[in-house]
Amino acid sequence: MAPKNAFYAQSGGVTSVINASACGLIETARKHRKQIGKVFAGRNGIIGALREDLIDTSKETARAIAGLRSTPAGAFGSCRYKLKSLEESRAEYMRLIEVFRAHDIGYFFYNGGGDSADTCLKVSQLSESLNYPIQAIHIPKTVDNDLPLTDNCPGFGSVAKYVAVSTLEAGLDVASMCETSTKVFILEVMGRHAGWIAAAGGLAARVAGDPPHLILFPEIAFDRERFLRGVERAVKRHGYCVVVASEGVQYADGRFLADAGTIDAFGHKQLGGVAPTLAAMVKESLGYKYHWALADYLQRAARHLASKTDVEQAYAVGKAAVELALEGRNAVMVTIERGKGKRYSWSTGEAPLARVANSEHKLPRNFITRDGFGITDKAREYLSPLIAGEDYPSYSGGIPDYTRLRLVSAPRKLKKRFRV
Amino acid sequence: MAPKNAFYAQSGGVTSVINASACGLIETARKHRKQIGKVFAGRNGIIGALREDLIDTSKETARAIAGLRSTPAGAFGSCRYKLKSLEESRAEYMRLIEVFRAHDIGYFFYNGGGDSADTCLKVSQLSESLNYPIQAIHIPKTVDNDLPLTDNCPGFGSVAKYVAVSTLEAGLDVASMCETSTKVFILEVMGRHAGWIAAAGGLAARVAGDPPHLILFPEIAFDRERFLRGVERAVKRHGYCVVVASEGVQYADGRFLADAGTIDAFGHKQLGGVAPTLAAMVKESLGYKYHWALADYLQRAARHLASKTDVEQAYAVGKAAVELALEGRNAVMVTIERGKGKRYSWSTGEAPLARVANSEHKLPRNFITRDGFGITDKAREYLSPLIAGEDYPSYSGGIPDYTRLRLVSAPRKLKKRFRV
Repeated sequence: MAPKNAFYAQSGGVTSVINASACGLIETARKHRKQIGKVFAGRNGIIGALREDLIDTSKETARAIAGLRSTPAGAFGSCRYKLKSLEESRAEYMRLIEVFRAHDIGYFFYNGGGDSADTCLKVSQLSESLNYPIQAIHIPKTVDNDLPLTDNCPGFGSVAKYVAVSTLEAGLDVASMCETSTKVFILEVMGRHAGWIAAAGGLAARVAGDPPHLILFPEIAFDRERFLRGVERAVKRHGYCVVVASEGVQYADGRFLADAGTIDAFGHKQLGGVAPTLAAMVKESLGYKYHWALADYLQRAARHLASKTDVEQAYAVGKAAVELALEGRNAVMVTIERGKGKRYSWSTGEAPLARVANSEHKLPRNFITRDGFGITDKAREYLSPLIAGEDYPSYSGGIPDYTRLRLVSAPRKLKKRFRV
Repeated sequence: MAPKNAFYAQSGGVTSVINASACGLIETARKHRKQIGKVFAGRNGIIGALREDLIDTSKETARAIAGLRSTPAGAFGSCRYKLKSLEESRAEYMRLIEVFRAHDIGYFFYNGGGDSADTCLKVSQLSESLNYPIQAIHIPKTVDNDLPLTDNCPGFGSVAKYVAVSTLEAGLDVASMCETSTKVFILEVMGRHAGWIAAAGGLAARVAGDPPHLILFPEIAFDRERFLRGVERAVKRHGYCVVVASEGVQYADGRFLADAGTIDAFGHKQLGGVAPTLAAMVKESLGYKYHWALADYLQRAARHLASKTDVEQAYAVGKAAVELALEGRNAVMVTIERGKGKRYSWSTGEAPLARVANSEHKLPRNFITRDGFGITDKAREYLSPLIAGEDYPSYSGGIPDYTRLRLVSAPRKLKKRFRV
């Protein structure tokens, strides 16, 4: 009997290392051709499955697939598209089964965050609920580091490194200029509901007094007066103040500091504009000259500054997903387990998807200093190994030589189209 | 007779390689102890001289000075402080002479942009005008690449590389997500009056259709309708649109697109907010989902992504400044000369300061495509070698191990204080 084929899709916001997971998965699957036939990737994520728009990854050279390891963003396209419950979205699940059956797909690998874990769980239940045999394995990915049951999420380490390095560099810049020019610099970073990314800014400091002087976490209610007093204190003490602010900073009553009012496909509010809001407060109340930066996608796409640890873990979770599938698992997420020793070590593990889906892993309070503006040694101990090591892409002509795939579509087998 | 000492100062906005110039200068001076005594650095630039706040660089180890080569920002502090004409600021020039005499300073090295070249010229004339013998040499530095008479300015190549790489990476991110999410991404970059930095974004594209799809230059009058049509065309053709916008984009009548209204110490308007302004236009007229980034200081401090060519040139102009001084020159700026051959080559040269001061080098019109939204092959040919090569700092604990100097003050010799 011919082996079953696999379906792989990237979901939600991309990262600088999600393609490294794709690389680990495809390279590993290619080593087990007797058990796994072709790996089809959904063009633009799960909607590629719904549309029967499958990319035949067997058409890519070994070299191109190897290049995925050092190429940021989603090489097959990703999407923000959440499948609802079986009751609400029955037509979508039926369509998935139709497409999977047409392409003889027995493995479903879904590479994403919390919402995707939920979708993956539902797909894993298709065997039972709709009598279609499939093994669904979730591969964690999120810059937000907010998945439970895994020590950390691939994608986070690199954005953390980007934020730490950018904070360090911008801090040196402001320190140079503060005597006559900018005194307050605010860097707005991602992290909708959890302050992991903002916390990483704290790694820029090696000794007391180093920037950042204030970190604003979504977990700590924002208090305008305390913030302004903190800025003033830093400027008086050091001559300048560097602030790292999470996009998710909110007042005690839950209002976001800067609410753009837009809502994305998952129903989350689209945030932006915390930095200019804070800058305006500083200007109005303290009169200091300020600058601010909003790194936005730059931070999560910065493969040029990826964490080696993160790249290795991203690759490993892709590889482990295939291995778990070969062992017959279903409805699990690959996890990263931290070793117990003093020296950082890690290995991959697994967790049941039922326990993962729709649960968020917040920054523990004891990672934040008592005043709410900094990170503790405990946080530092957790975060430091995740940004360790460099893993540079190759360059040509001064810019990284990122892989370009052929992205050949598998021939369609179904007459029926499905609109998404 | 004891050799004369040297004074060195960093001026204006810092760059990721201005310390490489300091490194070249100090290392070279240390090789000529018979002709140059100590190198004193102004703490926070020229105001360090006025305040008699001099850093004795001889107190720094060879290793610390070598580390300057890979440390961003201004290690001695910089300032935005412009000396006016001899007539208007006579007290300041008299004070400089007083400090220089007290510390036996015969060489004045000024590391900055156009405004600093002007100050350097005035100092060079002190021999004649106020009978104080001094040789003043200007060392070019500006991310804006707007100094005349030099092929390019140290500092520019690295910010250009940062913008090209960031555009490439963010472009891949948006391409991955555009099917269901963000369709327009706008990166705002520096470059007040000249579009050199924005032009560098164009280097992200290797083949036709690659991002950026639109570059907005200060040299091309902004036309809202043409911009929106360009965005729409890119989204229809490619599924998404990446825009690189200079902070200096302006309407035909000279109004800046986003004028923050603040004015810096040189009397320049402080800009910011072009990206959100453009994003609002896109949303209002086309309704596309957008994201935008404002790299601000991150781009000019990004030593982690410096151009090797830029680092080497920055070092070389510092070294050449000392060599020119030893040859008896005064009132000159070190320049970078491009070789004539097909293959890129460069060497240092010199230009009379009188021809440099207060003149700006704009992006030639033939570097911009006819439609005003892209760069030509001629631009590409000029820009490409400037971002070539990587020059990574060493890392420890996941972040760059940037040099920390001791910054020991030279004992004051004057009783009189001078307030600046």
